[in-house]
Amino acid sequence: MENLIKPDETLDDLQNGYFLIQKKEGFRFGVDAVLLADFAALKKTDRVLEMGTGTGIIPILLHAKKNPRSITAIEIQEEMAEMAQRSAAYNRLEDRITILHMDLKDASGRLGKASFDAVVTNPPYMKLGSGIINPSQKQAIARFELSCSLEEVIHSAYEVLEPGGRFFMVHRTDRLVDIITAMRNKKIEPKRIRFVHSGIGKKPHLLLIEGMKGGRPELKFMDPLYIYDDKGEYTNEIHDIYGRIK
Amino acid sequence: MENLIKPDETLDDLQNGYFLIQKKEGFRFGVDAVLLADFAALKKTDRVLEMGTGTGIIPILLHAKKNPRSITAIEIQEEMAEMAQRSAAYNRLEDRITILHMDLKDASGRLGKASFDAVVTNPPYMKLGSGIINPSQKQAIARFELSCSLEEVIHSAYEVLEPGGRFFMVHRTDRLVDIITAMRNKKIEPKRIRFVHSGIGKKPHLLLIEGMKGGRPELKFMDPLYIYDDKGEYTNEIHDIYGRIK
Repeated sequence: MENLIKPDETLDDLQNGYFLIQKKEGFRFGVDAVLLADFAALKKTDRVLEMGTGTGIIPILLHAKKNPRSITAIEIQEEMAEMAQRSAAYNRLEDRITILHMDLKDASGRLGKASFDAVVTNPPYMKLGSGIINPSQKQAIARFELSCSLEEVIHSAYEVLEPGGRFFMVHRTDRLVDIITAMRNKKIEPKRIRFVHSGIGKKPHLLLIEGMKGGRPELKFMDPLYIYDDKGEYTNEIHDIYGRIK
Repeated sequence: MENLIKPDETLDDLQNGYFLIQKKEGFRFGVDAVLLADFAALKKTDRVLEMGTGTGIIPILLHAKKNPRSITAIEIQEEMAEMAQRSAAYNRLEDRITILHMDLKDASGRLGKASFDAVVTNPPYMKLGSGIINPSQKQAIARFELSCSLEEVIHSAYEVLEPGGRFFMVHRTDRLVDIITAMRNKKIEPKRIRFVHSGIGKKPHLLLIEGMKGGRPELKFMDPLYIYDDKGEYTNEIHDIYGRIK
């Protein structure tokens, strides 16, 4: 199996029985992907679409912990999609995880309208014009809304979801207004939100949000999630979440 | 001055040199009014409108601490407006605080469009249909959107504010989606938000939000505000805020 790994790549042990291929110098998965996979309340019967899978970390985490009926993950960057496919193959998960090289804006056209029970996404966080972009960097497309806007992500999710289907996203808090207005406008009503703080007393920098296609307005807040304790160590909850990967 | 107080009323010492008349059995001011008065970043030159003043607590707190150029406060319930007027008179603040018995939907018509630099409001928190209302209770109109909706509050604020004018509101977190969509739709862009938690690790129940008429999208989060510490005592910050009333 080692020939699945290229010289500029690493094979990382996820400590849950699975491995992930990543670029040595490129976009590597972070705590946000782990938090999202934990936050996504999936059922065993769910057909799940992940939009913008990047390295393919999230489908592996979702399979390992939630084991939904099927996981389809799409990625616009061909090289990333191919690498994510190799990770699925390395883990012998090809029958559980389908990686497709596809623009998420084409998802409902190619995969069918109302054909998923849940959408999970960790989209690009940065609005165009909100930072310096070097388009030659492969990471840029994962970080900036070069290939899709937040509104397009949410609209595409609406299209592929069944009525009552659930939408799970991690994003930056400075996009809160854009997120909430886009979700309500696109008829994926926010139902549950959790703010992520680096520590107690610190402003939240990430948020986890669940919406429901055609849901009625009723937002529930969850208790805040703190990443580090006063000593700069991971909190017990973060240890639990990393543990729950397994 | 004592004849300003009716038999069913109390005269409460605000500990800042001022007093407030309240009904013995009625809507009495809470921590939300104190937090809002502290949160409102007013300048000495500001002409301030408070919408839905109730007992008239907020104008007194704003005057005591922020001393803006003028404070106008409107209240739809005649009996409450009259009582708030007596509190202003008791404190000899009639030349600084103007209490008007008025529907906030008539504010721009009666007070003039674009005639204020800042709007401050602690509106009814509860949507119609979200609880049991006894319309015979005077408190109902202060708690439920019987006389004005959230959208009407924000639209009225837009109308009376100068371009670039600032809007300060305290509200319940379960209305976050309604608040944010209404502010963006009504062109009062959310610029600053602070969540209020009863304690560390508890979900936030209140939020303080600042918007700007015609502002460009850029939301800043503030550090969370905790009301109680682990021992169930007010936190130092709450003591500071109550202290800053003076």
